[in-house]
Amino acid sequence: MPPFDVPEGDPFGPHNLPYGVFSLNNAPDGSPDGAGRRSVGVRLGDHVLDAGAAAVELGSPYAALLARPTLNPLLAAGRTAWSDVRRALTAWVTVPAHRETVAPLIHPLSEVTLHLPFEVADYVDFYASENHARNVGQIFRPDAEDSLTPNWKHLPIGYHGRSGTVVVSGTDVVRPAGQRKAPADPAPVFGPSVRLDIEAEVGFVVGTPSPMGTPVPLGDFRDHVFGLCLLNDWSARDLQAWEYVPLGPFLGKSFATSVSAWITPLDALEDARVAPPARTHPLLPYLDDTSEDASEDPGGYDLRISVAVNGHVVSEPPFSTMYWTAAQQLAHMTVNGASLRTGDLYGSGTVSGASDGERGSLLELTWNGRDVLELPTGKRTFLEDGDVVTLTAWAPGPDGTRVGLGEVTGRVVAGA
Amino acid sequence: MPPFDVPEGDPFGPHNLPYGVFSLNNAPDGSPDGAGRRSVGVRLGDHVLDAGAAAVELGSPYAALLARPTLNPLLAAGRTAWSDVRRALTAWVTVPAHRETVAPLIHPLSEVTLHLPFEVADYVDFYASENHARNVGQIFRPDAEDSLTPNWKHLPIGYHGRSGTVVVSGTDVVRPAGQRKAPADPAPVFGPSVRLDIEAEVGFVVGTPSPMGTPVPLGDFRDHVFGLCLLNDWSARDLQAWEYVPLGPFLGKSFATSVSAWITPLDALEDARVAPPARTHPLLPYLDDTSEDASEDPGGYDLRISVAVNGHVVSEPPFSTMYWTAAQQLAHMTVNGASLRTGDLYGSGTVSGASDGERGSLLELTWNGRDVLELPTGKRTFLEDGDVVTLTAWAPGPDGTRVGLGEVTGRVVAGA
Repeated sequence: MPPFDVPEGDPFGPHNLPYGVFSLNNAPDGSPDGAGRRSVGVRLGDHVLDAGAAAVELGSPYAALLARPTLNPLLAAGRTAWSDVRRALTAWVTVPAHRETVAPLIHPLSEVTLHLPFEVADYVDFYASENHARNVGQIFRPDAEDSLTPNWKHLPIGYHGRSGTVVVSGTDVVRPAGQRKAPADPAPVFGPSVRLDIEAEVGFVVGTPSPMGTPVPLGDFRDHVFGLCLLNDWSARDLQAWEYVPLGPFLGKSFATSVSAWITPLDALEDARVAPPARTHPLLPYLDDTSEDASEDPGGYDLRISVAVNGHVVSEPPFSTMYWTAAQQLAHMTVNGASLRTGDLYGSGTVSGASDGERGSLLELTWNGRDVLELPTGKRTFLEDGDVVTLTAWAPGPDGTRVGLGEVTGRVVAGA
Repeated sequence: MPPFDVPEGDPFGPHNLPYGVFSLNNAPDGSPDGAGRRSVGVRLGDHVLDAGAAAVELGSPYAALLARPTLNPLLAAGRTAWSDVRRALTAWVTVPAHRETVAPLIHPLSEVTLHLPFEVADYVDFYASENHARNVGQIFRPDAEDSLTPNWKHLPIGYHGRSGTVVVSGTDVVRPAGQRKAPADPAPVFGPSVRLDIEAEVGFVVGTPSPMGTPVPLGDFRDHVFGLCLLNDWSARDLQAWEYVPLGPFLGKSFATSVSAWITPLDALEDARVAPPARTHPLLPYLDDTSEDASEDPGGYDLRISVAVNGHVVSEPPFSTMYWTAAQQLAHMTVNGASLRTGDLYGSGTVSGASDGERGSLLELTWNGRDVLELPTGKRTFLEDGDVVTLTAWAPGPDGTRVGLGEVTGRVVAGA
């Protein structure tokens, strides 16, 4: 049964159904609802279904989860509800009997505004790509015996970021100011960052909370994590380099983190599940995913990311190369008894593949500014004001289809 | 005019009036309200005034801020409202005409439960005591030329912590498990932390938000920060030592952070304001508080902290020795354009004075376990299961009074 008005093979067909929060830019004629009312929406091709309004119109019990201005109630509802809601949505957009009701509730993306889809509780960022970690190690610690720190292969390194500055795709990013000091400088200077960078990441969105004092085991990953998004962890390398010893990144990261407007449920990514790379070091039991049935829960995801600067693709990082999986990150994050809350967001860490054209940051692509990227819009090492960075991605779907992961985009603007 | 039923000289007299959130343990006879309903309360001696109920009874316009289950609406109302509400509360508890109305709304602390007083947005922890930073540097980097990292005197070092595990005083703290590895060990081992520690800190609570892209200057500190609390930044030193290079503390801190149930408004601490220590390095303009009129806004606070383990005082850290002030920390935290939200909490960093008996962590008090603390309850280096740690503090108030800052206490319990 073809979905309503979605072309065959569209990466946002009914096999995908990612969730977002939208409002209409203009009130429809005769509608009792004004413009600006937020509702959960589901993407269909280049349209959005008002899932909240559809639930109400169809008398669905899921109206309480969907006719809401944020995804948090749906996230909190748990895995069984997530599957039930997805089944219902699939029926609403494919069964002809629903067409008359549903069709008027489908709006072109050009007529809506997409909002931050959920209220972010805690935001954690990991550092899980071996290629990325080795590149960074070689750039910043060229004399070190090993480009990885001694702990890297034993635990997924992570740290907390600022959840208050997580913004939705399309939000301008103001160039941050701060202190920087080159090793040879006698004292730090203050000014706008001159090494503004991006990090291409995947963000995982926690739905089901967990109590303090109770670790979440590896195998419970899918009970807690609702889905994923694209994430750009904007980074001011010069601020970061001066501040980060000994307590880690702070102002070099906290000015903005952009996420895609669409959250792809894990249920849409069944065909993208792959085994992670072979691990070179034995894993402690709470992180050991080799004892799982690999065909049942391989742990990795085959997501093909594309990084474009001013519309020009500069890199295609393959998520399948990540050394640590999202399930391992969740198990690690909670093994000390830390609780999870609905809306917790954690980033995979920069995704970098093995080859030059697969690096997920300008730091690596230009080897900390040594090499120049030749773009149609000019030469770049780091970002200039006015530059637009856009991450897109897709994953293998059922029957040779693609599952679109949407995009996260942002334009750099000068500070006041 | 004496306050109702508060003994002369009590540190929680009407010159203090700290805010919290409480519920009655048992419904009062004939009350329409059941037990468990949360309301904003104000501490008076060893009693709490139901400020929400008083506002309603007295027909106050501030009922909308006080008859609430959390302080967040009051925090969001801004400095003018904070002063107005404080003036109103002072009248309610001192003017005899209000006595008949207010007296029945004052409950013994023994009959109420105190809750986390506000919803924590982002939590940041600083590292602002020079004595503490030097002690830590000497312990962990004994061969370093300088016990401080090169950036320490140029910026207040900070990092984000986990806001989801900020808990109210009295909450048990489950001993965290995790990886640890001594330098000589061939590989990390997993188990409960064997170096569980505390950090005696002061927490600052942000009320008024600020937009992204707009730094908050030094002089605007009092427009944004509502008040302060006591904070115990529980720390698993063994987990922290293995994980923290290169991205900072993570699981070594994220399992629990305890705060006092009472938030003392800055307005109650006018007589505690002091100049910070002389700075040895020139400050960049956004951090330079020497150009302010020191008598008008000296920047520091004279808070006398006491750290007790199982009821035995082990340290008395003086907050007035902090190198970086809370105003500088706020200016630094936002200088990159990071926004503030109502409910943001930032910790001062461990408070350690110059002398041995003024150190704010067991790490320093025992010099990383080298020395033993002889307590009436037994010898200690780090914490054992069942240990109770309690921080209390006071500050100079008007006319020779003391302003009590309440307490933050927590008991260590074994993991499951």
